Amino acid sequence: MTAFLEGCRAAVGAAHVLTAAADMAGHLTDHRRRHTGAALAVIQPGSSAEVAAIVRLCRQYRVPLVPQGGNTGLVLGSVPDTSGAAIVLSLTRLHRIRSIDVVNDTLVAEAGCILKNVQDAASAANRLFPLSLASEGSCTIGGNLSSNAGGTAVLRYGNARELCLGLEVVTAEGEIWDGLRGLRKDNTGYDLRDLYIGAEGTLGIITAAVLKLYPRPRAQLTALAALRSPAAALELLASVRERCGDALTGFELMSDVCLQLVRKHFPALRAPFGKAHPQYVLLELSDQESEAHARQLLEGVIGAALESGLVDDAVLAASLGQSAGLWQLREHISAAQAAEGKNIKHDIAVPISRIGAFIDTTDRLLAQAFPACRLVCFGHLGDGNLHYNVSAPAGMSDEDFLARQAEVNRVVHDSVHRFGGSISAEHGLGALKRQEILRYKSPVEIGLQRAIKQALDPLNLMNPGKLI
Amino acid sequence: MTAFLEGCRAAVGAAHVLTAAADMAGHLTDHRRRHTGAALAVIQPGSSAEVAAIVRLCRQYRVPLVPQGGNTGLVLGSVPDTSGAAIVLSLTRLHRIRSIDVVNDTLVAEAGCILKNVQDAASAANRLFPLSLASEGSCTIGGNLSSNAGGTAVLRYGNARELCLGLEVVTAEGEIWDGLRGLRKDNTGYDLRDLYIGAEGTLGIITAAVLKLYPRPRAQLTALAALRSPAAALELLASVRERCGDALTGFELMSDVCLQLVRKHFPALRAPFGKAHPQYVLLELSDQESEAHARQLLEGVIGAALESGLVDDAVLAASLGQSAGLWQLREHISAAQAAEGKNIKHDIAVPISRIGAFIDTTDRLLAQAFPACRLVCFGHLGDGNLHYNVSAPAGMSDEDFLARQAEVNRVVHDSVHRFGGSISAEHGLGALKRQEILRYKSPVEIGLQRAIKQALDPLNLMNPGKLI
Repeated sequence: MTAFLEGCRAAVGAAHVLTAAADMAGHLTDHRRRHTGAALAVIQPGSSAEVAAIVRLCRQYRVPLVPQGGNTGLVLGSVPDTSGAAIVLSLTRLHRIRSIDVVNDTLVAEAGCILKNVQDAASAANRLFPLSLASEGSCTIGGNLSSNAGGTAVLRYGNARELCLGLEVVTAEGEIWDGLRGLRKDNTGYDLRDLYIGAEGTLGIITAAVLKLYPRPRAQLTALAALRSPAAALELLASVRERCGDALTGFELMSDVCLQLVRKHFPALRAPFGKAHPQYVLLELSDQESEAHARQLLEGVIGAALESGLVDDAVLAASLGQSAGLWQLREHISAAQAAEGKNIKHDIAVPISRIGAFIDTTDRLLAQAFPACRLVCFGHLGDGNLHYNVSAPAGMSDEDFLARQAEVNRVVHDSVHRFGGSISAEHGLGALKRQEILRYKSPVEIGLQRAIKQALDPLNLMNPGKLI
Repeated sequence: MTAFLEGCRAAVGAAHVLTAAADMAGHLTDHRRRHTGAALAVIQPGSSAEVAAIVRLCRQYRVPLVPQGGNTGLVLGSVPDTSGAAIVLSLTRLHRIRSIDVVNDTLVAEAGCILKNVQDAASAANRLFPLSLASEGSCTIGGNLSSNAGGTAVLRYGNARELCLGLEVVTAEGEIWDGLRGLRKDNTGYDLRDLYIGAEGTLGIITAAVLKLYPRPRAQLTALAALRSPAAALELLASVRERCGDALTGFELMSDVCLQLVRKHFPALRAPFGKAHPQYVLLELSDQESEAHARQLLEGVIGAALESGLVDDAVLAASLGQSAGLWQLREHISAAQAAEGKNIKHDIAVPISRIGAFIDTTDRLLAQAFPACRLVCFGHLGDGNLHYNVSAPAGMSDEDFLARQAEVNRVVHDSVHRFGGSISAEHGLGALKRQEILRYKSPVEIGLQRAIKQALDPLNLMNPGKLI
């Protein structure tokens, strides 16, 4: 492999080929610290041409590669296995915003741009780039697209897939496909863009993207509604959508268990209500007109829900500070659950109409199989996407609980499947769910996926062992 | 081929295997009557299982097949070549709306459902299915998806692609892939859905789809603005989007030449203004609140544009009847142009920011190459999509003019390419532009497309000679 590494050094500069353990360490362990792999080297190309040169070297020497952005994924998609045979190809040096076109409402970003920086660049041009998720301060746009990230604004703006008009990709052959078209309509062949989006780097490497921008809302208003069940939350969703249409940009469900956990571990965060309620919904309205208009809309719809008894109590943020406070309750759930101990995460989606029945049924099945386990269920109700997490019963050690992870997964995922759902709504498959998915997909679908992988990466060097 | 046809009769019933010339005729000529092909038979299966059975017979006997819905396409994608070797596989008997879920906001339609019937089914459930195009009374949803249809509501709701959550597809192997998932989020493998959408039946046959529904707007308001140039129209677009956001659901440009043609051939349609203006924009606002709210918004933005001199004159429809009258001006352009004589159509897109420069430049190039040719330019300005049609100079015969079609195409398409555009925005490639596209795509992109075709249809029996 000396010749290979020499070639890499010649291609990207010796300073960007890391082989010392200390230099590589941060790239080999996943975000949740559940897995540490090994690598031949971590290579940091500085341009798309350099990415292509590295891919060609990998082909020549048959070296597998693992593309990596911010390494914030939750399914072991961006870390290598323990064999040490692969390189990690870090995209973080490709961090330029190449251009911005406010009339076309597009921005061209390189793969290594941190999501927050893309949001800020849009904002500086008086535009909105709506993709928003917990790790936005460190995840990169290449990773967002490769995993088709979701987040809190999908209800209105769609997933990462819907926010991208074109791509630049280094193919498995080490060629550059320039598909950086900033067009709203283009029906000239197979949809290569959407094939690379969500492919988790197993077909090629996204090096840049044309992203869609939107007008910045004039006002954003947040409210928290307390109600008795997920079914009531669904009714509220329907009535808000009916009344407010696209102005509704967020609709997040969280159970009282979630709120209690947040209050326990982050006591500085204020309790929104005098007493506990079974469920809460965080609503966000974005308005193109004015704050007064948004407030009138939101007060109208919440008022009607209070009057009809659909909602038991509600608070409307009166300031940006109060709004941030409400969002913090939602955003601290994961951290609170982590502080409480290790847990088993499920990132699932079902048709929105079946969410209530899914939660009832699955809660019951889990209580039967794992008495006293604690359910921490929250998520993007408007998208049918729940983070249906399971914590150990009080008193059980993390190790004992995690040893039963496969059994817990089985109960939850089988239930998801019966409800016509997906076992990975927004996190992807990575190495973590790659085997699990075989249980739920038809042989026809698996066959089609394999044919595509074989056609575009016949040497199986692109992020092998992930997704497929 | 007797055994093949016997097999087909056994699979779908003899009544649904048409071989008489008179029975087949309507399926062999394209919508614009530019091409008539030949076929071994027209076969009309009545279920997805029957479609699969026919595809397996085609594999066994190596018979190519041409899937066909309403046969309203404009690029010869749904008619066979003249060899007579292929069958036409008509999907029109698959016309059931299988289910509708108003809480999930989805509808499952079979491929042969006429678009208008899907719109009506949504409407009956108090929902909107927003795909809308001139041929909606006869085109089918399978064709809409296979060609990724656009239409007049793309600005707000996206192309057919964005309106579909899941598919059922009969693969080239004659298997049924059940991907009818009604999920907003599902990151569990390669995006097969978007690969079949827009593939024009060359990878498999879409037999059913899960379609997205939306709340029905409470009010829709239409206005027509007269202005001096496409550049002024772009400025108006930016200011309306800034002020009204997603309430803007239509923004159609048409030149005075278009309006004159409509008035000449449809004199019953009323002229909207006392005098002619160089360009017109048809705006549509959809509102979730009330007509009064929509009117206040639209009057505000049009009023400001009149005051600043951006718009020279404007009318706001005061009733549904007036609104329909304004839309009719737009919708009769194609018919008026057809009545005037044959013309050469271009369905192009460029980045929205470059539309003004594209029109100026291309008008000039055409005037140099074909003095006195008449430009009939209109389209979906908000999507960057123009129908940039060219009619013969007065006095030149249709035949003489059409003989120069390739030269006219070359001038227009080369110009589109220089402006970073697409030579087929919403109509697809079919047989008509399949060669032409090779001039504009990179060898890398063509190579990727061919690899996918080879992987999913190695026998090249699925709509051969189309798209790729």
